[in-house]
Amino acid sequence: MYHVFGHTSPDTDAFASAYAFAYFLNSQGVQACAYRLGEPNLETKFVLEFLAKNFDEFNKNLSDLLPLLDPANPLTTLQKGDKICLTDHNEQSQSIANLTDFELCYVIDHHKISLSTPSPAYVRICPVGCTCTILWQMFNEKGIAISASLALFMLSAIVSDTLNLTSPTTTDDDRTALTALAKLAKLDDVDGFAKKMFIAKSDVSHLSAQEILLMDYKEYSFGGERWGIAGIETLDPTAIFARKDELAQTANLIKAQKGLSQLMIALVDIKEHTGYAIAYDTAQNDILSQVFGGLPQDGIFVLTGVVSRKKQIVPALEHYFLAKI
Amino acid sequence: MYHVFGHTSPDTDAFASAYAFAYFLNSQGVQACAYRLGEPNLETKFVLEFLAKNFDEFNKNLSDLLPLLDPANPLTTLQKGDKICLTDHNEQSQSIANLTDFELCYVIDHHKISLSTPSPAYVRICPVGCTCTILWQMFNEKGIAISASLALFMLSAIVSDTLNLTSPTTTDDDRTALTALAKLAKLDDVDGFAKKMFIAKSDVSHLSAQEILLMDYKEYSFGGERWGIAGIETLDPTAIFARKDELAQTANLIKAQKGLSQLMIALVDIKEHTGYAIAYDTAQNDILSQVFGGLPQDGIFVLTGVVSRKKQIVPALEHYFLAKI
Repeated sequence: MYHVFGHTSPDTDAFASAYAFAYFLNSQGVQACAYRLGEPNLETKFVLEFLAKNFDEFNKNLSDLLPLLDPANPLTTLQKGDKICLTDHNEQSQSIANLTDFELCYVIDHHKISLSTPSPAYVRICPVGCTCTILWQMFNEKGIAISASLALFMLSAIVSDTLNLTSPTTTDDDRTALTALAKLAKLDDVDGFAKKMFIAKSDVSHLSAQEILLMDYKEYSFGGERWGIAGIETLDPTAIFARKDELAQTANLIKAQKGLSQLMIALVDIKEHTGYAIAYDTAQNDILSQVFGGLPQDGIFVLTGVVSRKKQIVPALEHYFLAKI
Repeated sequence: MYHVFGHTSPDTDAFASAYAFAYFLNSQGVQACAYRLGEPNLETKFVLEFLAKNFDEFNKNLSDLLPLLDPANPLTTLQKGDKICLTDHNEQSQSIANLTDFELCYVIDHHKISLSTPSPAYVRICPVGCTCTILWQMFNEKGIAISASLALFMLSAIVSDTLNLTSPTTTDDDRTALTALAKLAKLDDVDGFAKKMFIAKSDVSHLSAQEILLMDYKEYSFGGERWGIAGIETLDPTAIFARKDELAQTANLIKAQKGLSQLMIALVDIKEHTGYAIAYDTAQNDILSQVFGGLPQDGIFVLTGVVSRKKQIVPALEHYFLAKI
């Protein structure tokens, strides 16, 4: 049995890629089970509800569809030596604790690599916008049919990761996969569906500051410093700006709890295709000014055109810290 | 322009996979050049001569076919920031110096992974017997035609890496690829061709001890210790045993020059499908006894059934050093 999971603080691609890869293995007679390493964010919840409404195979409890695997205590679910497969991530910091307790068999991902394995594993990493784009290619290569519901799930992941093909991470492969999956899912109005996903993820009014900061949270090592970057993609940045003091206060708490050097709060205005950072720490402000230019106005950095953590924010910070060494 | 190369101390797969991947890119209108990181071993020389005799496109100087890229001084050929592609390896220790001077774009390999990249690269690593098997799959997926000469080159690599499909690293994918490539190459008698390759590599009579030890040499880190493992695949182990004192003496010199903890001399009897190690260092002998069992007889360890450095020797040594920590 192969145990498949995406990254912690899971997004739509982490859910869909784990589900799709388990489906891919099972279709070939290889037993596999997909897990989630956390609860779905608002956008993923919308997608899962849409799938449950429209397809019987998704009309069940989330714990049956994608059981929770506690990333801090994976041995409550798995056993040492179990075969594991990572989708949409390849780094220890974004995975279950003590990866080396398990036999890493497959990695399907679209992020930069930082990985060592004791024996050869199947690793497939492509610089495309979404893991589900790679999986779509793998289904095609093997001639494995993709059901309408799976196509819609995979399509949602591509819409999510590429901001409906507008993010600078988008490649021709993502465009091709999205078009093909829309046909398989019989979804005529992808833009309309994408808008509904973005509206769903933008309504954070009932979330706590902590929930907002951790809903799309990732950690990185920059020149010996450990940074967290909380991503917030929204159609309504003013709703976030209105809560900036509360967010800053909570960010300081999380920073202390997790022992981070910095926790950057990075907003993306999905409609206007631009970015912001909440300025709340003088040391961090100083770095952000040097890296992205400009000074904060009313506690907000305007990061013109910056919409991708992976392709824009992380490389820029890496470049800054490398130059400092 | 993409610059493609296999590992140092190149074997047939290092040559063929670099050549094939550059061919793969060029076939898609992407400019690429394949290099070699060293001189061909006896087996690869036989393959290149066979290709030159039978195919016009291979009937040219090696420096035109696969120019030499000096692994110690890559900047004599490449410029900082050049786009590079690694085939048949992914570790710094088996590649050109200062990999981070270049933009790593592609990794196609079948070894365990130990790799970090600053930005997403295309990485495709499969636990199969030969890199050319993965490349054959990639040609198929993209529908790119493989010429008869390229098919023969790729086939030679699979024969070499899998000891004509008898090594424990052999998978069904290697078998399928070899059969398909033999058809494309119009080679009816693969076994006969394999035998000629093995005879060519077994005649080390005119090689110095240093040339024998470095012809298939790789380095590994085991629990903080740096080991070199010199592989010698031969149809005639007695010819090697007859030179064991000279080999041991030279191994001690290489060990000192390279600052290694140990240099293991690992023989494979291709015909009998079994392995040997030359016993010449009491500390190393002690470890080999613990890892593989038994004591040396007449200065030789018999490693029954051990024919793969990658799948048998390296994991066994890793396991030993991990257990020691």
